[in-house]
Formats: sequence, structure tokens, C-alpha cells
Amino acid sequence: MKLLEEGVPLADISIERVARIAGVGKATIYRRWSGREELFCDVLRTAEPPDPELPGTSMRDDLVVLLESLRQRGLANRSSVIMHSVYAQMKSSPKLWKAYHAAVIEPRRLKTLDVLRRGRANGEIRADIDVELANDLFVGPMLVRAVVRPDAGLEEGLPERIVDTVLAGLGPTAS
Amino acid sequence: MKLLEEGVPLADISIERVARIAGVGKATIYRRWSGREELFCDVLRTAEPPDPELPGTSMRDDLVVLLESLRQRGLANRSSVIMHSVYAQMKSSPKLWKAYHAAVIEPRRLKTLDVLRRGRANGEIRADIDVELANDLFVGPMLVRAVVRPDAGLEEGLPERIVDTVLAGLGPTAS
Repeated sequence: MKLLEEGVPLADISIERVARIAGVGKATIYRRWSGREELFCDVLRTAEPPDPELPGTSMRDDLVVLLESLRQRGLANRSSVIMHSVYAQMKSSPKLWKAYHAAVIEPRRLKTLDVLRRGRANGEIRADIDVELANDLFVGPMLVRAVVRPDAGLEEGLPERIVDTVLAGLGPTAS
Repeated sequence: MKLLEEGVPLADISIERVARIAGVGKATIYRRWSGREELFCDVLRTAEPPDPELPGTSMRDDLVVLLESLRQRGLANRSSVIMHSVYAQMKSSPKLWKAYHAAVIEPRRLKTLDVLRRGRANGEIRADIDVELANDLFVGPMLVRAVVRPDAGLEEGLPERIVDTVLAGLGPTAS
């Protein structure tokens, strides 16, 4: 984190350099992390807000909490030049991006799929809805604002608006 | 494009270098592009499929065509290591990303907002729907697959499924 704050590019941060700045041997680092990718993923995870507790009262409420956590991450990412730059650098390295994907993004996606399956089981969404598609319909609108469009609004209440509008639909026959 | 194909990072491509490889003077380049950012945006635009003609038969059909074009871009981006790397590098340069945003992404978003306003006027979506939110509800799910999750399905027919499911809604009371 110290190296990143000094503006050192990810590509120039080796395990050796981390060990040197931490005043430990390389073996000490390798005891905890198997490589650069795993170490960077942990740094990012530590810098990010922790994953939220789900209320479990309904699929709708769980989804709102999951989207609120994405909104907070988006806001944190925008306010931190370091985090923004680290994400961008990770995306330009397929190996790093894959590691971050496996460690952070995929578990979050599986958690959301579980919430959606419970909602399908209790009738909050229709039985014919594909949960993989539903995941993208709920999460996509938040991600596009948080990640793709740096100037888009991330206002309070956006998670509720997204979840409730997707549930109700936009068409005239929807309630 | 030749330099990118050789794996030269964007950061190392100056107007001077482009002029040298093209066998022209720098002034010739500057007559057409005011700087690196504008030149790179044009290179990307040329490499991407052109913006689609909208059928204009309905909001629904126009949206399907717009999303199909995003799907094609996503597929092209995945199959081209160069394009993928160039996008990632652009994202890590705020100045470049801003230029690409203004030249390519924002005009596309404004076009989609026009389509949605027509749909709201003719009753395809309800009068109380915020078109800015609607834009993200339709476009977000496609973008998240095309841009954020490199291994997500981008199968044929996905644009229709997204548009029709968002119109109908996921909830049990929706038709």
C-alpha cells in the first residue's frame, strides 16, 4: 500500500521489493501468499469495504444490501486515486484480473445467485426467470455507473430504485 | 495500429513516433488530430464495428439493435488481444479515457436516451420512468457481460432476452 501510495506502478512491485520495504525476507512473504497476484488481491480486499451482512428478510432486501455495497465500493473507488489506478492496472494484466476475479468477484456473484434462487423459490421472482440473467439485470445497472461511467450519479436510494424497477418492469402492462 | 500490433504500449506512442513510422512530418499529423488522445480515439473507432442503423419500427426493436451492437463490440474486443489491451490502457489514463468517453461513449448514450424518450412518448414504457435509469437498466446487463466479466456468455439472442425481460419485469405480478 505504501508503494502504491508513492505511485509505484503494479508492474514494478515485486515480492522482493515488498519484502525489502517490509524489512522481512522473501520467504516470510511466500509463507502467506503464493505470489504477486494473491498478495495484490489481498491488498485490494483490505482497502475495500467488507462484504455486507444480508438481512435475509426477503430477496428484495438482500439485493438492495448487495447493490448498496457496490455503490459504496464505487464511491470509494472514485474518491481514491490509488484504488482507481490499481483497478485499471489490474484490468490491463489478464493474469492479475483473473486472480482478482476468482478471489473477489466470483464469490460475490455466487452469493447473489443464491439470493436470487431463494427469491425464485419463494415467488418473489417468476419461476421461469434465469437467475444468471437476473443477476446481470440487477447488478449491471449499478456496475455500469460505478465502474464504466466515472461521472454517473451514485446517489443514495439508487439500489432501491434499481431493484424495484427491475422487479416491476418498465412496460405499460407491468404493475 | 502497426505499433499496437507490435505490442508497443500506448504510453510509448507519441505523435512523433507515429509521424516517423508513417513517413510524414509531425505537422501532417497535427493537421488532422489535435493530439494523442484524439488520434487514439480515431484508431479505436476505426477498429470497432460502425454504429448501427436503427430500424425505427419501435423502441423495443431499436433497443435490441443497440444492444446487439454492444454484443458485437464485446465479441470483437474479446477476440482481439490488441483491442483488449488498448481499452485497459485507456482506462488507466484518465485523460485518454475522458477523450474516448466524450468521442464514443457519450454520443452512443445520447442516442439511446432519444430512443427511450420516443418509447416513453408512444407508451412502450411508462410515463413515470426516468430515461437515464432506463438506459442503465437496458445497457448495464450487456456491458457487464461484454466488459467486466470476460468469461460471461454473449450468446445470440441475448439482446432480445434483456430488453423483453426488463420491459416485463421479474416480479410475479408482471405479465
